[in-house]
Amino acid sequence: MTSRMRSEIEEIPSVVRAILAQGTSQMAEVAAAIRARAPRGVIIAARGTSDHAAIYARYLIEGRLLLHTGLAAPSLTTVYRTPLDWRGLLVLGISQSGQGPDIVAVLEAARAGGALTVAISNEADSPLAEAAEHSLPCRAGTERAVAATKTYVAELAVVAALVAAVEAEGRDQRDTGLAAALPGLPEVLARVLEAAMAWLPAAEPLIEALAASDRALVVSRGYNLATALEVALKLKETSRIFADGYSAADLLHGPVALASPAIPLLVFRPDGPMGAALDGSVDHARAAGARPWVVGGLELAGDAGPRALALPADLPEVLTPLAFVLPGQLLAEAVAIRRGMDPDAPLGLTKVTRTT
Amino acid sequence: MTSRMRSEIEEIPSVVRAILAQGTSQMAEVAAAIRARAPRGVIIAARGTSDHAAIYARYLIEGRLLLHTGLAAPSLTTVYRTPLDWRGLLVLGISQSGQGPDIVAVLEAARAGGALTVAISNEADSPLAEAAEHSLPCRAGTERAVAATKTYVAELAVVAALVAAVEAEGRDQRDTGLAAALPGLPEVLARVLEAAMAWLPAAEPLIEALAASDRALVVSRGYNLATALEVALKLKETSRIFADGYSAADLLHGPVALASPAIPLLVFRPDGPMGAALDGSVDHARAAGARPWVVGGLELAGDAGPRALALPADLPEVLTPLAFVLPGQLLAEAVAIRRGMDPDAPLGLTKVTRTT
Repeated sequence: MTSRMRSEIEEIPSVVRAILAQGTSQMAEVAAAIRARAPRGVIIAARGTSDHAAIYARYLIEGRLLLHTGLAAPSLTTVYRTPLDWRGLLVLGISQSGQGPDIVAVLEAARAGGALTVAISNEADSPLAEAAEHSLPCRAGTERAVAATKTYVAELAVVAALVAAVEAEGRDQRDTGLAAALPGLPEVLARVLEAAMAWLPAAEPLIEALAASDRALVVSRGYNLATALEVALKLKETSRIFADGYSAADLLHGPVALASPAIPLLVFRPDGPMGAALDGSVDHARAAGARPWVVGGLELAGDAGPRALALPADLPEVLTPLAFVLPGQLLAEAVAIRRGMDPDAPLGLTKVTRTT
Repeated sequence: MTSRMRSEIEEIPSVVRAILAQGTSQMAEVAAAIRARAPRGVIIAARGTSDHAAIYARYLIEGRLLLHTGLAAPSLTTVYRTPLDWRGLLVLGISQSGQGPDIVAVLEAARAGGALTVAISNEADSPLAEAAEHSLPCRAGTERAVAATKTYVAELAVVAALVAAVEAEGRDQRDTGLAAALPGLPEVLARVLEAAMAWLPAAEPLIEALAASDRALVVSRGYNLATALEVALKLKETSRIFADGYSAADLLHGPVALASPAIPLLVFRPDGPMGAALDGSVDHARAAGARPWVVGGLELAGDAGPRALALPADLPEVLTPLAFVLPGQLLAEAVAIRRGMDPDAPLGLTKVTRTT
């Protein structure tokens, strides 16, 4: 029987197609509001999987729109009651359910304090959507598996489409190909998903190693830091593996001590300068005995070998996180089943988490 | 034989005393420069252990000075060459060695772009100190153990003293007792260190559980999120344990799936509202079978039992991270020795890490 998690992963290309097809006028409206306010900076509030979408958004907004972007520390609002000055800021709240009280509280404080607020949520009438001035729905449909997959990629797609729309409103964009690549994205994701599913038999030794180990390292950097963190979280949630997601740079500042032949190491490697930068860090882990598996772009196709997956992801690096996460999600599902766990209903987790 | 790591932990109260005694006029000068510029926001660049000092600084600056504060993503500067607008910002670089090329590059870009730049480093003539307009030395003396301990607390002390000095320059401070508590801090740390060392025999079952497990969870929130992350990193570095540091709120959004009777759980719990907020999250982990050890303030003294350490840390919560980390550092050293490892020279790590 196919798990719900697996079915929901397979829906991702069509979910992204729906976002790009239906969201245009709404995106344009929010983008115009952002341009009109010319924010002095951006703050994003999110938790869990959505926090990884926030990390992607942080790189995309700072890298493309040249706005300094930070992640909110909700406890400063909810526990410490800090009277921050929110004027002139753009504050995004990202949440699958739109129900996390701490994220809602940050958006409420920011809006009351004069920030431009935007909710990105899969539930259009959620408390988060109501707290924010603007709401962008993820249109992913109901997600039944507890571990978020399609709603994660949907959040990334909404963020990418929003940033492209803000760029289109301005004249100062840098050409990293975001807007040009977006229309073809659903097609690319469909091809990537197919390639990732076809790769699973070759990834048997990795699935086996992950299932046999209680620990793993998942590494990337830049735009795909979000991918490393999210795939690590999926392995934690579905398979109870202590999978640590790291920036390759941070890995070398200590955690590389964990690398060894016994610890599965999974690397997400985009083509281009970041890929080259990652290679150096991975070599350090190799020197410690790690035998990395690498998921990435077509640069891997040449000297790939069985431990590499060269995805047909003909995308600018800024969009690769939507593609690279797919084999990671499939792996997490496969490892859960291998460990005799139910990927749809991890022990101790519920679909909606309410932290204050 | 006493390890260098242990000796360096024992130096911490006197290191902090030196910072507070010698740094006053230099602090006042940098604080006046910060007040004069009235920054629109703050960005902190750091890696590894210093990144945890940056997380502490983020809460302290945002919570006390009411300035929105974010952590830099160095790759946006070094790999993606993003032409960010640095005007009107305060940019702090924190690094024990002051030699990380990526952190230096961020400070250089920020300074050239018009930011007010401050280096916090243990090496007064490091590249980082030269890159920044202002430099605040940590005065911790040479640190020989690879795992940073005294330089970490020294970085926290410099940050706290700087924030207190900026508050003293202004008239809008909120009274959380920072400036009033600083002079007594070295004395409190000496008492806390003594209590933590006296606790180690009672913590035998925890040391044994950590040494026997390859995994652990370390949890706190708010100001002591830095403590949880740093103690987890020490366990990784010295003992090769997959110790995951978490915000209690983020723990519930997925990683609580990892909690079980077999996984040691260590909680850093300040007194007051944050302690009460943490109790709820810890109850969730308890429901999953975890049997937490709790390190915290005097509120623990009443119903403590053997699994709790009530530190004589008569400090406002904003200063507790300097105290709470001490038993965590001692634990990491003890666990390394129990595992037959050399706490001073972890496999695969060097004292200075140069990532770009």
